[in-house]
Amino acid sequence: MKIAVDAAGGDHYPKNPVLGSLLALEENEELSVVLLGPEDSIKEVLKDNRYPSDRILVHNTSQVIGMNESPATAVKSKPDSSIVIGLGMHKKGMVDGFVSAGNTGALMAASTFILGRLKGVIRPVIATYFPTVKGLGLMIDAGANLEVKPEILLQFASMGNIYARDMMSIDVPRIGLLNVGEEKEKGSDILKNAHQLMEGLPGFVGNIEGRDILKGQADVFVCDGIVGNILLKFGESIPEAIKFLLMAVAKKKGLNQEQMGLISEVLKEVFEPFDYQRVGGVPFLGVDGVSMVGHGGSSPEAIKNMILNAVKMAENEINKKIIASVE
Amino acid sequence: MKIAVDAAGGDHYPKNPVLGSLLALEENEELSVVLLGPEDSIKEVLKDNRYPSDRILVHNTSQVIGMNESPATAVKSKPDSSIVIGLGMHKKGMVDGFVSAGNTGALMAASTFILGRLKGVIRPVIATYFPTVKGLGLMIDAGANLEVKPEILLQFASMGNIYARDMMSIDVPRIGLLNVGEEKEKGSDILKNAHQLMEGLPGFVGNIEGRDILKGQADVFVCDGIVGNILLKFGESIPEAIKFLLMAVAKKKGLNQEQMGLISEVLKEVFEPFDYQRVGGVPFLGVDGVSMVGHGGSSPEAIKNMILNAVKMAENEINKKIIASVE
Repeated sequence: MKIAVDAAGGDHYPKNPVLGSLLALEENEELSVVLLGPEDSIKEVLKDNRYPSDRILVHNTSQVIGMNESPATAVKSKPDSSIVIGLGMHKKGMVDGFVSAGNTGALMAASTFILGRLKGVIRPVIATYFPTVKGLGLMIDAGANLEVKPEILLQFASMGNIYARDMMSIDVPRIGLLNVGEEKEKGSDILKNAHQLMEGLPGFVGNIEGRDILKGQADVFVCDGIVGNILLKFGESIPEAIKFLLMAVAKKKGLNQEQMGLISEVLKEVFEPFDYQRVGGVPFLGVDGVSMVGHGGSSPEAIKNMILNAVKMAENEINKKIIASVE
Repeated sequence: MKIAVDAAGGDHYPKNPVLGSLLALEENEELSVVLLGPEDSIKEVLKDNRYPSDRILVHNTSQVIGMNESPATAVKSKPDSSIVIGLGMHKKGMVDGFVSAGNTGALMAASTFILGRLKGVIRPVIATYFPTVKGLGLMIDAGANLEVKPEILLQFASMGNIYARDMMSIDVPRIGLLNVGEEKEKGSDILKNAHQLMEGLPGFVGNIEGRDILKGQADVFVCDGIVGNILLKFGESIPEAIKFLLMAVAKKKGLNQEQMGLISEVLKEVFEPFDYQRVGGVPFLGVDGVSMVGHGGSSPEAIKNMILNAVKMAENEINKKIIASVE
C-alpha cells in the first residue's frame, strides 16, 4: 500500500504531515508514503528524525493552495500544488489513496474533478464522524452538497451505511434522516420524499430530531451539507463553550485549586468523544478513489490515523461496495 | 391587559397553566387572564389556591388538540378547542394576547389562519431563545418555514432585530446569517442572495458558522426552519448528554460522593442558560397579534414568564414596529 500525503496543507505543514507519516510507517510496515510539498522544508523535518528511507518518497510541488482560497479557482490555477499532483498520481494508479489536512473545499473539488465520480453516484459527499453518548456516529453530508434531492439523500444513506459497517465496524448501522419531527409526514417535500425512498434500506430507523443525535438514536445521520456543516462545527464548539461557562461558575463559587483540578480532569475525559484528533480524517465518498481530509489543525497523531484509515478504505474495497449499492 | 391562557395544552394541563397564571397575576396587578380549557378541572385547581377572582375568567372549551396531532386537521376539526377559541377571542380584540404550552404546529397554523399575517410580512415565523456564552441569543426561524427565499430570510432578520432590541433589551442586535462559511460567497444560492439583501441592515455581521453560535458571535441567528429546529433541539439535548458522559467517567475514575456532589452542583449552574423554563415561551412573529408558545413541559414559572412576555410584547407594540420595518 502506498499513500500520497499532502505536506503542503493544513495549519502546520510540512511538519505535522511529515511526522504523521513517520508514525504511520512505524505502525504499518507494509506501507510506503509519497510526501508532496516543498521538498527542502520536508527534508528539513525528515533529517531530524529516523525513518525508513526506502518507504518514503518526497515529491516537490511548487504551488500551495491556501486554507481560505476559493476551491474552484485554486484547483484550476495551481496545477503544481500538492493537492492536484497527489490526486493526479492516485488517478494514474501510482498510489492507493491521498490524504490532506488542507483546504476542504479545494480537496472536494479536486477529488471530484480529478478522480471523477464512481459509477452511478449522483453526487460525491463528505462523511464525518459525530460523537454520541453511544460512541461515534457518521454524519453525511458534512458540507459538500448544499442543495440536494431525495435520491441524492438516498445515496448518502447507502454510502454512509457501507462506511459505517466496513470502516467503523458497526454490524447493522441504524440509518436516520435528520428532520424536524419523528413522523414520516414531517419536513420539507425533499425530506418527505427522501424518507419514502429510504424506507427500503435495511437499518433505516426513520426521522431523527435534533435532540436524538447526541443520544445516538442512529449510527448514520443523513442530511444536506448545510445542516451537516452547521451541526458539525456547532458540535466541535461545545467543549470550549462549556469550559468558558464553567470558569465563570467556578469563579463565582470561589472554587479552590484542587476542586478546579478535579473538574478539569473529569471534563477532559467527558469531552474526549468531541476530539477530532482521535479519528484523524474523514472520507469523500462517491469519488473514484480514496481521498481523505483532516482538520486544518491536525496533529501528527491525527495525520497518522488518517493515513491508516485511507489504507483500510482501500483494502476494504469500499468503493466497489458503493458502486454495487447504488446500482 | 388581558391575556388568554391555554389551559388545555402542554404536558401538565390544566395544572401548570392555571398555577402559572396565578403567579403572573400576583406579579402584575394590572393583569387579568382568561383560562381556556376543561372548566371543571380548571376550577379544581383554582379552588386549592387563593387568587384574585375578579381578574380570572374561566372559559370552558370542549375539545383538546393533542401534542402530536397533525396541525392543519386539528385546527379545522376542533373549533371548540382552547387554541381556536383563544386566538378567536384575541382576533376579536377581547384579549391582548394568547399563550400556550400546547402543540406548536397547531398553534402556528391557527395563529396564521385566525390572526392573519401582519401587513407586508411574507411568512410568519417562530423565534426562539438560544443560549450563548454571552447570554441569550435569538434564533429565527425555529421550525415554522422549512423552505424559504432570500427575501423571507431578510424579513426574519428584521423581525428578529426588533424582538431582540425591544423584548430582550439588546441595544443594537448583531444579526448573523447561519451558513457554512464566513465569506459572503459561501452557501447555497438562497443564502448568498439573502446575505446580499441583509447587507443593508444595521447590525448585520455577515455569515455565522456553526462554531460561532455558542460563542455568541451574533445576537440574532437567521436561518430556515429546518436548520433552526434541528439546532434548537440539539442544543436542548446537550446537558443531558454531557451528564450521561460524566456519569460514565465518574464511575470509571471511582469518584466519591463529595466529588460527585461538587461536579453536579457546578454543572447545574453551567447548564442554566440551556434551561428553557427560564424564558417561558417564544413568539410567533409576523402574525397580526400576540401569540406565544412554550415547551410542552413548561412549569408554572415558565408559564408565568410567558404570560408576562406576552404583556410586554403587546405593550411594546412590537407588531407596529414590524410592519414599519418590512415596508
